[in-house]
Amino acid sequence: MLLAVLELIGIAAFAASGAVAAVRARLDVFGVIVLGLTTALGGGIVRDVLLDVHPPAALMSWPYLAVAGVTGLVVFWFHPTVAKLWRAVLLLDAIGLGLFVTAGTTTALKLGVPPYAACLIGMTTGIGGGALRDVLLREIPLVLRREIYAVAALCGAVVVVLGDHFRLPAVPVALLASALIVGLRLVAMWRRWNAPVARDVDGGKLDG
Amino acid sequence: MLLAVLELIGIAAFAASGAVAAVRARLDVFGVIVLGLTTALGGGIVRDVLLDVHPPAALMSWPYLAVAGVTGLVVFWFHPTVAKLWRAVLLLDAIGLGLFVTAGTTTALKLGVPPYAACLIGMTTGIGGGALRDVLLREIPLVLRREIYAVAALCGAVVVVLGDHFRLPAVPVALLASALIVGLRLVAMWRRWNAPVARDVDGGKLDG
Amino acid sequence: MLLAVLELIGIAAFAASGAVAAVRARLDVFGVIVLGLTTALGGGIVRDVLLDVHPPAALMSWPYLAVAGVTGLVVFWFHPTVAKLWRAVLLLDAIGLGLFVTAGTTTALKLGVPPYAACLIGMTTGIGGGALRDVLLREIPLVLRREIYAVAALCGAVVVVLGDHFRLPAVPVALLASALIVGLRLVAMWRRWNAPVARDVDGGKLDG
Repeated sequence: MLLAVLELIGIAAFAASGAVAAVRARLDVFGVIVLGLTTALGGGIVRDVLLDVHPPAALMSWPYLAVAGVTGLVVFWFHPTVAKLWRAVLLLDAIGLGLFVTAGTTTALKLGVPPYAACLIGMTTGIGGGALRDVLLREIPLVLRREIYAVAALCGAVVVVLGDHFRLPAVPVALLASALIVGLRLVAMWRRWNAPVARDVDGGKLDG
Repeated sequence: MLLAVLELIGIAAFAASGAVAAVRARLDVFGVIVLGLTTALGGGIVRDVLLDVHPPAALMSWPYLAVAGVTGLVVFWFHPTVAKLWRAVLLLDAIGLGLFVTAGTTTALKLGVPPYAACLIGMTTGIGGGALRDVLLREIPLVLRREIYAVAALCGAVVVVLGDHFRLPAVPVALLASALIVGLRLVAMWRRWNAPVARDVDGGKLDG
Repeated sequence: MLLAVLELIGIAAFAASGAVAAVRARLDVFGVIVLGLTTALGGGIVRDVLLDVHPPAALMSWPYLAVAGVTGLVVFWFHPTVAKLWRAVLLLDAIGLGLFVTAGTTTALKLGVPPYAACLIGMTTGIGGGALRDVLLREIPLVLRREIYAVAALCGAVVVVLGDHFRLPAVPVALLASALIVGLRLVAMWRRWNAPVARDVDGGKLDG
């Protein structure tokens, strides 16, 4: 129940982030909806493939598709309001990341995956959809460009695993983990935290 | 039997679309063959992974690989004729899309997947190979840029599902569904149908 | 045992190739580590998904992750030495390719996959990580641009299959196959072997 609600909100957030990115890339209405669907459902499909859930839940359950599709349509409709706020993609992406990492880690633990692997699968669930969105629009994925992205996902996954280990109540732990991830991303954006970048590299193209 | 023939023709069409795109991107002969193979086999492999068919049929059956490889080689050989026709990629892509959506939806229904999910898996089968081709050549995938692409795939998948539901003979239904998809794509290209595009968006880069 | 050692060395080589490419693309320290992990673990995860090994070994075994992560960190630290040598990416990629194709083909044969499909799965294992690295950095993958890449992988896979067929001792065969792949790639780079490229093609963009 909790998982289902978290996932639906996460799906709406990721669908909106994909749709806003698609509007900004000047795709038409169908492209906006397809990219919203891909961003919203991609992470969960990857998780189910890794966990041997066949066919993936995202393809078997119409509410997932309906929420993602309607969200894409709403974004397209109200784009003059939504799309000008270019930070909207980042904010929605942060919310989707938080909810998907939490839901993915919880799902993996329920299926008996060891804690270590559950963290990795949870992170993959959260990162997958956004990475797909960026690759399809020919952007280098956020997870590679933003310092506090993989780290935020990891922190949230660890909170879920610790909560499960100490048998803490699931709902507060899930909310805490999601809030931690979203909070870390927002603070990182707000403070423009910078991680070290390698210097003195000639930026030539990879070739051979 | 019908499925196998449809798939082989679809593989040849997608292999040719990938090979022509590779020739246009000035890849060498091996790059042309590899991209042809990837375009032709990618959608079917994704379908089999989603449907828990292991190892994927495309990797177990040499005729698939032979048809795709020979097609790539033929395209490379006759490129001065083939590649100048830049609409050839689009035409071949439309044929591959039609046949793969039909074959993918039929396969999913045979394996007992509910109609709703069978449509989605059929669409993924058809869209997957071409999307992979475009991402590897750093293009935004056709499915995101062309209005009547996902919609055409959906219409064809629905025809297959309806035919299965009403127990209509499989061969004419499959041919009708494939022809519908190809026809919709061709008419869309010919009439340059336009779907609405969001206006008044500053096209700045996604960053954060 | 042999497989595990080959895979760990291959993981280090691919992680280093991903990390060097990330440093050259001016990603920050976390981006460098994430791209190193993706390059190192991507091929093995794809292989396990194709072979129905759930969850993939790369997510269940901490040494894989530790080796890949530490390698990425070391590359970032010593980047002024490592990254100037832009051929380092190519050399490390060749070593990773050789070891992964060998390990992937051997794993597939052990799981009872027919020789034909084992070659394809071995090649996919070797090519997958590097292709993911290049797509994430918006490069056209090496396998499409370098003449002797898929061919080298195929030769190594065939050696493994022949060795298995004639029941030759596994260790020397694996070393020979890996050395053959690396050798073919190095000679191709050194001699700048060129495969034919299609001429007289107008290089316009794919559109429709």
